[in-house]
Amino acid sequence: IEAAAWNKVFFKMSSKTILILLPIFVAYLLIGGGVFHVLESAEEIKVRDRVFGLQKTFLGGDLVDCLQPFCAEDAEDKHDTDCCVLKSNLTTVQGFMISYLQETLNNLTRMHAENSNCIEMEELPVLIIKPNELKDIVDVVGLSIDRGLDPRSTEGRSTPLTWGFKGAFGFSITVVTTIGYGKLAPVTVGGRVFCVLYALFGIPLTSFLLCKISKALLNLSCRATERVCRARPQWNRERVQKAAQACLLVLGLVLFFALPTITVCTTEQWTYWEALYFMFISLSTIGFGDYDLGKNREINYSVAYYAVMFVWLLGGLAYFVLVFDLGTRWLESIGGKVNVGSEEASPN
Amino acid sequence: IEAAAWNKVFFKMSSKTILILLPIFVAYLLIGGGVFHVLESAEEIKVRDRVFGLQKTFLGGDLVDCLQPFCAEDAEDKHDTDCCVLKSNLTTVQGFMISYLQETLNNLTRMHAENSNCIEMEELPVLIIKPNELKDIVDVVGLSIDRGLDPRSTEGRSTPLTWGFKGAFGFSITVVTTIGYGKLAPVTVGGRVFCVLYALFGIPLTSFLLCKISKALLNLSCRATERVCRARPQWNRERVQKAAQACLLVLGLVLFFALPTITVCTTEQWTYWEALYFMFISLSTIGFGDYDLGKNREINYSVAYYAVMFVWLLGGLAYFVLVFDLGTRWLESIGGKVNVGSEEASPN
Ligand SMILES: [K+]
Ligand SMILES: [K+]
Repeated sequence: IEAAAWNKVFFKMSSKTILILLPIFVAYLLIGGGVFHVLESAEEIKVRDRVFGLQKTFLGGDLVDCLQPFCAEDAEDKHDTDCCVLKSNLTTVQGFMISYLQETLNNLTRMHAENSNCIEMEELPVLIIKPNELKDIVDVVGLSIDRGLDPRSTEGRSTPLTWGFKGAFGFSITVVTTIGYGKLAPVTVGGRVFCVLYALFGIPLTSFLLCKISKALLNLSCRATERVCRARPQWNRERVQKAAQACLLVLGLVLFFALPTITVCTTEQWTYWEALYFMFISLSTIGFGDYDLGKNREINYSVAYYAVMFVWLLGGLAYFVLVFDLGTRWLESIGGKVNVGSEEASPN
Repeated sequence: IEAAAWNKVFFKMSSKTILILLPIFVAYLLIGGGVFHVLESAEEIKVRDRVFGLQKTFLGGDLVDCLQPFCAEDAEDKHDTDCCVLKSNLTTVQGFMISYLQETLNNLTRMHAENSNCIEMEELPVLIIKPNELKDIVDVVGLSIDRGLDPRSTEGRSTPLTWGFKGAFGFSITVVTTIGYGKLAPVTVGGRVFCVLYALFGIPLTSFLLCKISKALLNLSCRATERVCRARPQWNRERVQKAAQACLLVLGLVLFFALPTITVCTTEQWTYWEALYFMFISLSTIGFGDYDLGKNREINYSVAYYAVMFVWLLGGLAYFVLVFDLGTRWLESIGGKVNVGSEEASPN
């Protein structure tokens, strides 16, 4: 009964700490979101302009612009990047293309009349795809994908900034939890310096909070053990404790893993297995970044979804701390023969 | 003196555990490397073939092949993707291009003679870059970058498999340490299922090993404290301990952070700041993946470099465990007023 009373006191203190830490944690994330947004968004706008430039050159540029007059004006499915040429205009288009080629080639011949006996492939007309141009496309597409931008976006059909406040706030979460998906990573010097400092204080803060939540969870099983032992004093106390811990693990698996997985898989339109894989990779803080929440531009995410997932993420991370903690303890008990009692006597 | 003896015993036991755990850890990584290599390389070869296909179509394909006869045969800087057309051949090239265009347009006219009064831009000749083709390029380039492949690689000038044994071994390290750079992530169902199971046992194993190394490091400061206190009994014991811990932190910063950073920055040809940023993001296990070791194809990495970095990574991770542990304890001591002694009384 004394242990039970102590557990109760501990549980109250633990809950109080969590209640104090949570607003500090949220405030820390909000500050991170603001600073990262300010530091990184200017650089992102520059990269966006390069992507828009690429699209303008190859899609909105010469070819499409020149062909526009020949396009069907009443075509239903006309986009700004697609064009439907009327069959009756084909001869005109053909003539236009041929004259375009002839003109370009004539220009090239004149340009190189004196100083070279060669014409590099690079100098062939823009209309024709050349190794050099393909390289440009590959570079810009690679850059935009590296920076989490859609390489197909144009000025008219653009996606919101990935380093907007919402994105920067999400990025802050991936830093302090050490998940670090990496689709979004700071590229400016200021952003990187701040990121290091932010992590240096944020990671201990988060790990402290998660430890507290994880201990509060473990404490639930202790309180359950006390109750059962009081009701059934004849039962083996150690066995009851193990059973309570097993119950906690299974209950946690449902509450912090199976349920959010269902929510994620229905909202993000992934398969259940993809969502399960994503949840494991996130909660174990590996965070490959091959899947990420709220990134599908075809889905309208509600604020409630983000809020619910934030709370669930915290609970799930605490649960995984518990699972890996129990796993480490289990490893320790195996190694116990070699190294008895070293854990308790840990010098400080 | 009793504490000193206890510290010595503990240190010996701790070292023994580390010596037993290290080969198990390395064996675990080797097994992971083998299994991931087998599970993922087949899928990677498929994606590579798509990339090679793209390069063949746009670089080694129609245009370059057909132009090859007109190219300067004695040009010095002739690559397999570059071609230098002799000026004397320009008229022939021009004629070839025009006839190619005419033929394609004639084919299109014939094809659409009956069933449509429109010709979609998509059906314009391959030689001309079209929205649809650009989309294809963007897709394949995106896919190859997502999978860590060089989108510019051709069958002749290919990069080694990212999921070769070496790559898969490195991937295993990023899984069990929870760094998870994510440039390399399993895409097959088998690879993902194995990855989850592998992490489930590997993460506690690694965290156990790192804790032991971290404690051995902390113990060094305890032994130093003992020695100093024996030599200068008049000194304040607590202050000596704090000073020893501070020395350990500074020494660790040099040994596990500054020195490997210099090694990395000279080998990978990054700036010192980039290497510093990379080291912090890696050792804190955030692991964005924007920088990764041994990925520059223009550098010949020695086996010694990989081995040294592996040992350094382990030491650095253990050092960071220590740093974040001390950070969390510091936070705890701040919150101590609210929550006295909850840590020591932690129910089990
Ligand atoms: K990561
Ligand atoms: K990570």
